[in-house]
Amino acid sequence: MRQPIVFVTDFGRDDAYAASLTGAAMRVDPHSICVEGTHGVGAGDVLAGAYHLKALARAFTGGAVLCAVIDPGVGTTRRAIAIKAGRLRCVAPDNGLVSYLWNETDPEDRWAISLDIPPGTSPTFHGRDVFAPAAAELASKDGFDVAGDLIDDPVLLPAAFAERRGNAVHGVVAVVDHFGNAITTIRAENLGDARVRTVSWPAGSCEGLVTTYAEVTTTVGALIGSAGHLEVAGNCVAVVTVGGPQVGDAVVVELA
Amino acid sequence: MRQPIVFVTDFGRDDAYAASLTGAAMRVDPHSICVEGTHGVGAGDVLAGAYHLKALARAFTGGAVLCAVIDPGVGTTRRAIAIKAGRLRCVAPDNGLVSYLWNETDPEDRWAISLDIPPGTSPTFHGRDVFAPAAAELASKDGFDVAGDLIDDPVLLPAAFAERRGNAVHGVVAVVDHFGNAITTIRAENLGDARVRTVSWPAGSCEGLVTTYAEVTTTVGALIGSAGHLEVAGNCVAVVTVGGPQVGDAVVVELA
Amino acid sequence: MRQPIVFVTDFGRDDAYAASLTGAAMRVDPHSICVEGTHGVGAGDVLAGAYHLKALARAFTGGAVLCAVIDPGVGTTRRAIAIKAGRLRCVAPDNGLVSYLWNETDPEDRWAISLDIPPGTSPTFHGRDVFAPAAAELASKDGFDVAGDLIDDPVLLPAAFAERRGNAVHGVVAVVDHFGNAITTIRAENLGDARVRTVSWPAGSCEGLVTTYAEVTTTVGALIGSAGHLEVAGNCVAVVTVGGPQVGDAVVVELA
Repeated sequence: MRQPIVFVTDFGRDDAYAASLTGAAMRVDPHSICVEGTHGVGAGDVLAGAYHLKALARAFTGGAVLCAVIDPGVGTTRRAIAIKAGRLRCVAPDNGLVSYLWNETDPEDRWAISLDIPPGTSPTFHGRDVFAPAAAELASKDGFDVAGDLIDDPVLLPAAFAERRGNAVHGVVAVVDHFGNAITTIRAENLGDARVRTVSWPAGSCEGLVTTYAEVTTTVGALIGSAGHLEVAGNCVAVVTVGGPQVGDAVVVELA
Repeated sequence: MRQPIVFVTDFGRDDAYAASLTGAAMRVDPHSICVEGTHGVGAGDVLAGAYHLKALARAFTGGAVLCAVIDPGVGTTRRAIAIKAGRLRCVAPDNGLVSYLWNETDPEDRWAISLDIPPGTSPTFHGRDVFAPAAAELASKDGFDVAGDLIDDPVLLPAAFAERRGNAVHGVVAVVDHFGNAITTIRAENLGDARVRTVSWPAGSCEGLVTTYAEVTTTVGALIGSAGHLEVAGNCVAVVTVGGPQVGDAVVVELA
Repeated sequence: MRQPIVFVTDFGRDDAYAASLTGAAMRVDPHSICVEGTHGVGAGDVLAGAYHLKALARAFTGGAVLCAVIDPGVGTTRRAIAIKAGRLRCVAPDNGLVSYLWNETDPEDRWAISLDIPPGTSPTFHGRDVFAPAAAELASKDGFDVAGDLIDDPVLLPAAFAERRGNAVHGVVAVVDHFGNAITTIRAENLGDARVRTVSWPAGSCEGLVTTYAEVTTTVGALIGSAGHLEVAGNCVAVVTVGGPQVGDAVVVELA
């Protein structure tokens, strides 16, 4: 069955670039089902892109082809890759965008290919000329049949993975979302079954975890968000305005 | 026939939240037709959401399922509802979002259901786990068959409805649109056949009504916009910059 | 075969206007394939719209119906038109939006029609009541069969076309894109085979052309972008912040 193509880019929505991906996919397969994941990733922000790809993978559990184009190195020698992680497939420049998709899939159930670059490709727009056509090709059928060489070492971002040191888990804020919640690289599985004692960042801290945004009664609280990452959240307020952390800030969870 | 699902949220477009609704709908029905109504409602702005739902209902007259998620109370005890208003169906948190859809439909032709919350629902993301799946279920067939109890008292926002006092109609600015026009809660039907003498707000006023934006020759004018609400409009200028009202301002129409 | 409808407007994405076009198209043809080209053109910026239409025409080479609504004169006597340029069809207010589409198509292969305005059309929203329905009509079948009179003089914008004077080509910045690149009206064909010596604008200049964004090693460089227009580009930086030109600035290319 034809699967949807879900685009994740830093193109913004105010130019023709985003829709050009849809056009390019439709050239390969006029019946492509094109979904706007988000075109709002910060320019060149690969870590944020990796997080949004993971969040979308959780939503498209029936299978989809993610097409990620956050690509400051376009036209240089960086590889273009396709991966298969369980039922999900993803095409992207090989710069760390697939960090979570790759890391969180059983090694038995993941494959990666270094894509051939078609002749005539524009040196400034691989999204249109490489990634969208490859995504459309993959989405039009099952399997993982695209032109290129099998590889086993897609680039992963070290910064995407929190570190456990003793009773503490050290991460960073990867994304501040539209509501002003600061989403970290600390994942539910990093905490295991231990109780959270405190969550701290350069400018402040809070105690324990809550379950819903509405429970945050003081200025900020911490909770596990809908993609399984710890976030510092406010009650209808951007956390940075009430002492919370911002993108890139170190966040430490102390476990009981 | 399968109907489109039209999303209206305050999620913005820069995260994965908006597309997660599409993913959740496709899990229920892989052939879902997902349309982005708007994800640009102000965070928690239920009155603006109610207005945009009405405007979209006017555009999708062939029938559609509106899926509205402006939901500051997510995870609390507020009800999740589905309504049928004529040919249109809508799912939403029960916080007033359906005010216009419900109020403007003949009582004989409207129904409401308090939706069951499925087990395993994330306490922070009912859009993905409750509303989008219910919308996909409804959109995949005709009728109004979803799990829940019939109710007859969806929450309506008092602020959504202008009041007639003598020869005056009192409303507020519900939305300032992308062009800077200030759209009020005063509807064409509130004016009846009477001639408009003046439209006034805290910082100014204008005389009578015009028909097109191009007719506004002085700083601001008033007209009945494309969804049937009175708006204070400028000639290619945001009205707030030329003495017009802003969101929340009281607006009074004096009739002849 | 049914073709996609690609919308290009200055509506923004925060109101119901953009999706109202989709709703209107679906009323004419419930199976319409609606694609968001962009709704982010600056209010009333016809030159930017003309550029984005050209960029999208390059992406949708399999044929599409572009539906352009940047329409400050809505409700006045300006014509509403449909054109056919090669395989591509486009509906728009007759204010210059089709400048590039028309100019860059062989006169033997282009046609234009002045569209009839249906009775009951809202004087403030021809996008919903005129252009989207006409686009859906065209997209549902091949050919160029819509109600109206053949014309041969669609409005073209003089400002869209750079001028050659001796060894110099004079243009302007039409669009600053999401990445801060300043895209001009100077097209690859204006340069012919001549070598570019310098590109200059009121506040600065640069030497020669590069091929990829990554090659820009000094503050700004010039290259031919993905739609065939010369742009002044930075290396991961908005050019205006490093001495580059802004929208409307004159840009001159001196050829060797």
